[in-house]
Amino acid sequence: MEKQNNIIKPKTLPGFVELLPKEQVAFDNMYGKIKRSYEKFGFVPLDTPVLEYSEVLLAKAGGETEKQIYRFNKGDTDISMRFDLTVPLAKYVALNYGELAFPFKRYQIGKVYRGERAQKGRYREFYQADIDIIGDETLDLVYDAELPSVIYTTFTELGFSNFTIRINNRKVLNGLFAELDLKDKASDILRVIDKIDKIGKDAVIEMLKEIGVDEKNIAKIMGFISISGTTNDKLDSLCALDIANEQFKEGVHELEVVVDYIRKFKVPESNFTIDLTIARGLDYYTGTVYETILNDYPDIGSVCSGGRYENLAGYYTNRKLPGVGISIGLSRLYYKLHEAGVIEAKRATSADVFVIPMTEKIDYPLEVANAFRQNGINTEVSFSKKSMKSVLNYANRLGYPFVAFVGEDEELFRKVTIKNMYTSKQACIALEEITARLNSLLDNN
Amino acid sequence: MEKQNNIIKPKTLPGFVELLPKEQVAFDNMYGKIKRSYEKFGFVPLDTPVLEYSEVLLAKAGGETEKQIYRFNKGDTDISMRFDLTVPLAKYVALNYGELAFPFKRYQIGKVYRGERAQKGRYREFYQADIDIIGDETLDLVYDAELPSVIYTTFTELGFSNFTIRINNRKVLNGLFAELDLKDKASDILRVIDKIDKIGKDAVIEMLKEIGVDEKNIAKIMGFISISGTTNDKLDSLCALDIANEQFKEGVHELEVVVDYIRKFKVPESNFTIDLTIARGLDYYTGTVYETILNDYPDIGSVCSGGRYENLAGYYTNRKLPGVGISIGLSRLYYKLHEAGVIEAKRATSADVFVIPMTEKIDYPLEVANAFRQNGINTEVSFSKKSMKSVLNYANRLGYPFVAFVGEDEELFRKVTIKNMYTSKQACIALEEITARLNSLLDNN
Repeated sequence: MEKQNNIIKPKTLPGFVELLPKEQVAFDNMYGKIKRSYEKFGFVPLDTPVLEYSEVLLAKAGGETEKQIYRFNKGDTDISMRFDLTVPLAKYVALNYGELAFPFKRYQIGKVYRGERAQKGRYREFYQADIDIIGDETLDLVYDAELPSVIYTTFTELGFSNFTIRINNRKVLNGLFAELDLKDKASDILRVIDKIDKIGKDAVIEMLKEIGVDEKNIAKIMGFISISGTTNDKLDSLCALDIANEQFKEGVHELEVVVDYIRKFKVPESNFTIDLTIARGLDYYTGTVYETILNDYPDIGSVCSGGRYENLAGYYTNRKLPGVGISIGLSRLYYKLHEAGVIEAKRATSADVFVIPMTEKIDYPLEVANAFRQNGINTEVSFSKKSMKSVLNYANRLGYPFVAFVGEDEELFRKVTIKNMYTSKQACIALEEITARLNSLLDNN
Repeated sequence: MEKQNNIIKPKTLPGFVELLPKEQVAFDNMYGKIKRSYEKFGFVPLDTPVLEYSEVLLAKAGGETEKQIYRFNKGDTDISMRFDLTVPLAKYVALNYGELAFPFKRYQIGKVYRGERAQKGRYREFYQADIDIIGDETLDLVYDAELPSVIYTTFTELGFSNFTIRINNRKVLNGLFAELDLKDKASDILRVIDKIDKIGKDAVIEMLKEIGVDEKNIAKIMGFISISGTTNDKLDSLCALDIANEQFKEGVHELEVVVDYIRKFKVPESNFTIDLTIARGLDYYTGTVYETILNDYPDIGSVCSGGRYENLAGYYTNRKLPGVGISIGLSRLYYKLHEAGVIEAKRATSADVFVIPMTEKIDYPLEVANAFRQNGINTEVSFSKKSMKSVLNYANRLGYPFVAFVGEDEELFRKVTIKNMYTSKQACIALEEITARLNSLLDNN
């Protein structure tokens, strides 16, 4: 055996998360709700490797991304860990094009790796939960409206009602800058506008000056991003701007069509809005863009973002594969919601009931546990030889809502004494009735 | 935009799996059944990082393991990718001891990495699905019987009935060798015995000779591992061997107790057996050991193995943490079952129904889809502008069991025309009735 003094201190890499059981159960709960919401709309699961050839994974990357990559050699092979789920999707679709039916609707929930400076709520290993719809040559605009419908369903399922899906169109922005003869400054201006929520109007004006935008154009830009009112008001104001640029017109038309479809998808008016300040990155998205804000927790920032892109896999194939997608930064969302006290991490077990045999005989307690399990009630049985106090302490630490005491009397009358651990109420119920009763109680919990 | 001739060939690292949609759905199906089975018994999920400090992860490793590890430096940090889920569990329990309630029952299903020579059905990135029960200082033998009960539930859930959980106890083997004065050759003998299924009796005898076991002892060993009959016969024969060694007696007693408990857990007699040839590795397990064989596919070998160990985390803590655990090699199991034609990969979608709007108007089709989804029926809506033939071809390629045609007549009478794609039968049914009808049809599918 190991010498006692040869102990290696157990520790986890900074920026890598390892949750305690209660938190893990709460996290898995979120994970499951997102997964089920994506599946409701028919998205198919995809699971790509964590490791890829560096040459393939970094085809497009550069600058900041490349610095953050976990990259190494194994034998002669230059390998990198995936840093998002979009590049692996592009590779997958290019590689398996002939085997896929289009539109290809896939979801992937998995870990990605970025070796950035570790800080609170910023992870080096974290989950993303993505959906994308990929077309072959073309992809109808209605899909740009289906995604807000999925976002609405997902966040409703997660227990939120007060959230807003903010929608914009990159063509509107690009068209405006072309009209103002600011095309060469477009990237810089977009970057500034994107910050308005964080830094405010005045700072934006100041930064636009610094970039070299003249006062007249600053006024036009600020007028544009200040367009307000209802969604219809905003669309009317956009049309009223009377900007001749074709791309601008196309963008406004697309916004109108997408909004019209979103309404047909029955996303409530209170859960989406046009927000002309949203740009989402600089060179990837080409049409509709999304952000999602939890209005009670605006500091979290966008919890679900994405947009339309012209071509998914241009680095791997000559085929044109337009798509639209969104991503939930699951680890970050969990951390922020946990920090805000929104997430209740109550249970350190997957089970609902803890069966405690009151004697040495475990036959009937095991029969009870089997009956529970066969009726969809996850059940742990106590085999502890310790005191009842210690056994109940265990049940409490794990957050069990129900404990079932099973002793001689219970066996004799084929009953179970069930105790609600929150209310401390208990009752002795016939085995043949209890699973139905418990199931309805659990539904109410 | 990208120049057309700058294409990078999309490819995946050898030994890394990427499934096509139909296979991925089938794989996820298996994954979900295993997960739900583990949760039925109250095991709590755990998710540890894929990357760890090499110093921590390789505390115990050596030889073969160390050669296979994916290990690299990032900045000054020496990092390794996990090669199993047991070492991370040991680290976790040692690190979080004060926060955990014992027995700590956790499951973890995740990817592990071994850079071994890639070959068919052998992966460098593969899923393991583990459960372990960890005690603080002690852990009752009843848990050694609970695991076969979980295995039984899991493989039943996976659709198998003809499988056998083989059980042995390392103390029986070790005690026997001590009695035969073969203690110094024990590891070699165990390694040989472990192979009997693959190489046969005669080859085992030959190899025992080569190791230097004399004929008398070979006869005794072969007599021992040939013990046959029912489980009770085997236990009787073991007792009748009249071996005085204390460890042997303890091992036989433990086998008796565990078998007794397994029966109380209602694992059918046909699904478990004592197999005295099983050793499972050389220095890790110290008591009960398990293997599981699918009797219709014996070539696959053990699909679920594990056992009892004295001390989980001796490398990280002085606390004694005995445990018992099992592991399903999920990727390998999927591959082998797929190869054997057991797994039907029929669907390339998470949805059950494909709604096809028959006109440009999508309001009512979307209402139908929402009604389906609210009733637990995953639903995709077709927004294709292509011909009906092409749309139906898409539905067929994705393996949809049901297609719903929704046109003007359907809207007028608030009905849905539903078609069973397997039988080609179709019917026009009122919207308010259809979800219940569909749900019962889907249950039968």
